[in-house]
Amino acid sequence: MKNGIISYSGGLDSTVLLYLFREKIRMAVSFQYGSRHSEQELKCAKYHCEKLGIEHRIIALDFEKWGLKSSLLGNEDIPDGHYEDESMRSTVVPFRNGIMLSICAAIAESEKLDEIYLANHLGDHAIYPDCREEFSSAMSKAIEYGTYQKIRVMTPFVYMSKRDVALRGKSFDIDLAKTWSCYKGQKIHCGTCGTCVERKEALSGFDTTEYLR
Amino acid sequence: MKNGIISYSGGLDSTVLLYLFREKIRMAVSFQYGSRHSEQELKCAKYHCEKLGIEHRIIALDFEKWGLKSSLLGNEDIPDGHYEDESMRSTVVPFRNGIMLSICAAIAESEKLDEIYLANHLGDHAIYPDCREEFSSAMSKAIEYGTYQKIRVMTPFVYMSKRDVALRGKSFDIDLAKTWSCYKGQKIHCGTCGTCVERKEALSGFDTTEYLR
Repeated sequence: MKNGIISYSGGLDSTVLLYLFREKIRMAVSFQYGSRHSEQELKCAKYHCEKLGIEHRIIALDFEKWGLKSSLLGNEDIPDGHYEDESMRSTVVPFRNGIMLSICAAIAESEKLDEIYLANHLGDHAIYPDCREEFSSAMSKAIEYGTYQKIRVMTPFVYMSKRDVALRGKSFDIDLAKTWSCYKGQKIHCGTCGTCVERKEALSGFDTTEYLR
Repeated sequence: MKNGIISYSGGLDSTVLLYLFREKIRMAVSFQYGSRHSEQELKCAKYHCEKLGIEHRIIALDFEKWGLKSSLLGNEDIPDGHYEDESMRSTVVPFRNGIMLSICAAIAESEKLDEIYLANHLGDHAIYPDCREEFSSAMSKAIEYGTYQKIRVMTPFVYMSKRDVALRGKSFDIDLAKTWSCYKGQKIHCGTCGTCVERKEALSGFDTTEYLR
């Protein structure tokens, strides 16, 4: 019985999660919130949902119009550096996972689903407070209490490194070249922004076409 | 120092809350999510924010397009009856307070505010799971963990009845006639839908112009 919904960006982590739990996931929800790399992410997300025959719903949110501040929304330059550096803080989109999980909860309640999958992992924890275990478990409680379906948030990668996630994906033969990470949203991955550096570390030793596309 | 933001509908409860904490609240956020009574609510919300000189931000959300199901969104008729009746369940908008609080949290983080005010009260608890104390306190934890500002949710009415809230408003001389409750969104309050019945009970003994407008 498929009883799950996934918050699905089309990035490496959520794509691996989508494949691992494909037997449980009935719907994938992607958010178009005005980030620079939205188009490339969505293309990847669509590809995998079609391949797996999973319903794909796209939700448009105008974060900039709401007044949210982040370099991901085009207010300032994307910094280069390591994903866990303090300089990456400008790339935080305030409480993004809270907003996305809440919307997934509302859709799940409407569709009678009771599990939300989220691909937060260890590497996210340093800079992104809404990726930490303490956040996702409190959010799971809030959603469980706040819905008739008693919906919960499932975070299978919360104590795994991105490297571990990538290796898991590799062993399942997922086409990781068809995932998008780079924050800058150019035609190919820039290779120098925080999320590119993290992607390269995670895919070190893999066929380079998998991160250099 | 004003460090607060309020999720503000323009209804009776959140209007009383706005006045009681006017010294703390820097911004009011109203959500236009496609309910039938949105126009009347917003008119009231604007009136009080202007009167108090509080910044008013309006966020448009297309709940129906997202696939959320509720009679408030125009999928079916609004039932008449008592607010706490099981028949009112069709008026639940799935996880609405979760979505609104998450967006308030994101705005608060961007504006360096650290308190979110929510006017959930005892009468909401029967039918609306995302109004109960267990929900709002778990949500407060999730928001505290998920933000740099360690933002919290303040729910001063969570153990008060709507009658108590109305009496509080009366003693502060708030113009309650300029608040909107009715779900049906006609020109005047219908007087028979769940929230009208609840409003009349709460305002019993008050000048009738305060609920019959």
